[in-house]
Amino acid sequence: MSGPQTPEPALGIQGDAPTGARDEDATDGIQHSHRMLSFSDALLSIIATVMILPVTHTEISPEQFDKSIQKLLATRIAVYLMTFLIVTVAWAAHTRLFQVVGKIDDTLALLNLACMMTITFLPFTFSLMVTFPEVPLGIFLFCMCVITIGAVQIESSAHRALYRQHILGIVLRGPALCFVAAGFSLFFYPLSYLLMATVIFLPYVSKVSSWCKGRLVGPQEPPAHSMEFFTFDLHEPLSKERVEAFSDGVYAIVATLLILDICEDNVPDPRDVKEKFHGSLVAALSVYGPHFLAYFGSFATVGLLWFAHHSLFLHIRKATQSMGLLNTLSLAFVGGLPLAYQQTSAFARQPHDELESVRISCAIIFLASIFQFAIWTTALLHEGETLQPSARFGGREHMFMFAKLALYPCASLLAFASTCFLSRFSTAIFHLMQIAVPFAFLLLRLLVRLGLALLCAMRGLAQPATQAEEDAHAPLLPAAC
Amino acid sequence: MSGPQTPEPALGIQGDAPTGARDEDATDGIQHSHRMLSFSDALLSIIATVMILPVTHTEISPEQFDKSIQKLLATRIAVYLMTFLIVTVAWAAHTRLFQVVGKIDDTLALLNLACMMTITFLPFTFSLMVTFPEVPLGIFLFCMCVITIGAVQIESSAHRALYRQHILGIVLRGPALCFVAAGFSLFFYPLSYLLMATVIFLPYVSKVSSWCKGRLVGPQEPPAHSMEFFTFDLHEPLSKERVEAFSDGVYAIVATLLILDICEDNVPDPRDVKEKFHGSLVAALSVYGPHFLAYFGSFATVGLLWFAHHSLFLHIRKATQSMGLLNTLSLAFVGGLPLAYQQTSAFARQPHDELESVRISCAIIFLASIFQFAIWTTALLHEGETLQPSARFGGREHMFMFAKLALYPCASLLAFASTCFLSRFSTAIFHLMQIAVPFAFLLLRLLVRLGLALLCAMRGLAQPATQAEEDAHAPLLPAAC
Repeated sequence: MSGPQTPEPALGIQGDAPTGARDEDATDGIQHSHRMLSFSDALLSIIATVMILPVTHTEISPEQFDKSIQKLLATRIAVYLMTFLIVTVAWAAHTRLFQVVGKIDDTLALLNLACMMTITFLPFTFSLMVTFPEVPLGIFLFCMCVITIGAVQIESSAHRALYRQHILGIVLRGPALCFVAAGFSLFFYPLSYLLMATVIFLPYVSKVSSWCKGRLVGPQEPPAHSMEFFTFDLHEPLSKERVEAFSDGVYAIVATLLILDICEDNVPDPRDVKEKFHGSLVAALSVYGPHFLAYFGSFATVGLLWFAHHSLFLHIRKATQSMGLLNTLSLAFVGGLPLAYQQTSAFARQPHDELESVRISCAIIFLASIFQFAIWTTALLHEGETLQPSARFGGREHMFMFAKLALYPCASLLAFASTCFLSRFSTAIFHLMQIAVPFAFLLLRLLVRLGLALLCAMRGLAQPATQAEEDAHAPLLPAAC
Repeated sequence: MSGPQTPEPALGIQGDAPTGARDEDATDGIQHSHRMLSFSDALLSIIATVMILPVTHTEISPEQFDKSIQKLLATRIAVYLMTFLIVTVAWAAHTRLFQVVGKIDDTLALLNLACMMTITFLPFTFSLMVTFPEVPLGIFLFCMCVITIGAVQIESSAHRALYRQHILGIVLRGPALCFVAAGFSLFFYPLSYLLMATVIFLPYVSKVSSWCKGRLVGPQEPPAHSMEFFTFDLHEPLSKERVEAFSDGVYAIVATLLILDICEDNVPDPRDVKEKFHGSLVAALSVYGPHFLAYFGSFATVGLLWFAHHSLFLHIRKATQSMGLLNTLSLAFVGGLPLAYQQTSAFARQPHDELESVRISCAIIFLASIFQFAIWTTALLHEGETLQPSARFGGREHMFMFAKLALYPCASLLAFASTCFLSRFSTAIFHLMQIAVPFAFLLLRLLVRLGLALLCAMRGLAQPATQAEEDAHAPLLPAAC
């Protein structure tokens, strides 16, 4: 067991099983949970995000944008948001549970799969609920699912007696409420909805309230308290690795949903090409030009948002409760990006609604990126605990991180403002702006490096000895002094 | 740098950056590539698998299963298979490249994103090619994409001079062939297709041929040679972690595609419910009963196949070239499982085609699982190198692994045979069988454990001292002696 007993406290992996040691126990049929958790993270992030597809598949043509379409769209957006929130709650409960279950055997792995299967069924219950709000069946199915998930998780946690009371209290809260809701659904369904809303929002409300309390009472003591509330263990911070894995899954699926639409919708019909375009495929494809531009613009945005997230979490040492909440909110809007893409590409040829759709895109991008920025700000509040030394106030990377995270909020605000002032602003310009942002990133890096090098050179003239020492310390990085 | 210098040679993580050390260099803006690689794996596995969606979305009604539908279906299956193969080739090249690129900076991360964006665009070029086989535009676009990917990867590898020549040789092979193909596409397109086929299949053909040669010449020397060919470095085996991550992504997306269909198609229309079912939602849903059964059966199958894969790779120490190839083939059929689901649920009400669709499902499941079994067999051929001691011949887990991996091939053969002999076999029975398999797994575990315990007890009567020692060695596992 070399992994857990290394002299240093394993900076990178926190909470979960160190991967280096996971094979050693495989011989007993008991394994560290690393791969099972990655798989669960991938599944959960995909389920959370994939319900945006029905939203983007809603056929909107500007001529007949009437009540029924609006209602359908609202329905599907509601299903997406509810699914996203409940899956995040389930994911958080899963994280909590497996922070104390260090090793798994085959039975636990199968139970985990059963849990996943039940969670994948949740979106369907939401669809039922939203389509038939007054029929209790949807609520009933939803509650049954949550109770099954709870039962499976209790079965899992029964393998470990430690913290058992505490876990049961938190993991069972949802299923218990749902049990009551299922009962009420048979004769008075509005109350069931209220109880369900409690299940979905309670974790968020309690997180926000505890954070607010922490802010009001004093800034020094609360972090330890909130950490305990989230992880059951004062010495174990929220598993940063799992937050990253879940976020990666969301970004990856959002980036890939885009190409699915391209492949399904934008291949011209051979008969059309012959009749309308005299057999010229290039002419037929040029009709879809705005779609391709929109695709590349959206991919660039998703990719860059992932990149900002990646850079941010490289400098974060532990993720507190409030940072987890902000991350969830940011991801919810990232999941909405395919909608933005759909909007801008569907309306790309109608000049009247074009500006409106650009505005919606800007709003979604702004919200997704401002919550990332908020994670950074929150981390700065307790920078000693949460950030790497180089990213703290006055650190080498501080200004650069600040600029990196501020880029998207500023750019989207700028684009939003442009739609108000410039009447000739169009989706094409918007997508070209999106594609240009990566180059802005590189330019930014160059400028910051140049500024730093200048500063260093000035300092170096004063203290040449220190600089030589620093150079010897970082031989791979010639430009950063 | 505690990670790379632990006394033991890091069994779990091979090839890639040890996660424990990845935060320490973050201060320099240069990072270990762990998270970027996970994200790339997630993206690539999703792109490889998601093209099955257009196949399953092809509307087939048994009445009008005519030529045009058959052609459309064949087209889409071809696009899926080509995408899967080319993405796997790209993934393998990406793995090779990043086995020598240990650390990344921001520029490399952005280049990697550009590479991913180009790869996501490949499926569209295939769609074009298959829809317009005689128009060179599709080929041309495809070749441009491959060349871009190659250029980006060379740009990445330029950061590291070590092995540069060797990498360039392998990474550039595809783009160079594509460049020639692009040239030919303008005046003689059949040759372009031939060249493209070379790009897609060359890695597989060379793998198979080198494996066959290894088998013929002698079993002792070739593995070292083939290892070198795959990883550029004799001392570094194929990154098992990345094989696992890519496989996890494929299984996760396949499991989740199923629920998407359920949510989009199986929510009844409120008007239908009122008119046809007199407002009874339960009656309306019972029409979709077979769909739900099919969903749960398919999820159980995907989940259990993942579980078998997970168990298998727990006992594998390094993945050789031929094992990687077999894994790819297994995954290609796992990706076909949504098609099996669609087949069985679409034909669930037509007794004539029902048996046929069950047979197709059985064939897909059989092929997916037999390739997993083949990985195990291949690993056993060089068991000293590739397997954990407990899984080798005579090891404690050997028989159990054998039984676990043989379960699905046997069960699918059994189901296939049933369709031939039992005229009353139906999709409902098939799906119930699928759902029953997890319990068979648990029963199997129990039986193997019981048999082992019996053996141990008998041995224990002969040598009681040895047994006590073994018990002290494995205190967590009371039943396994």
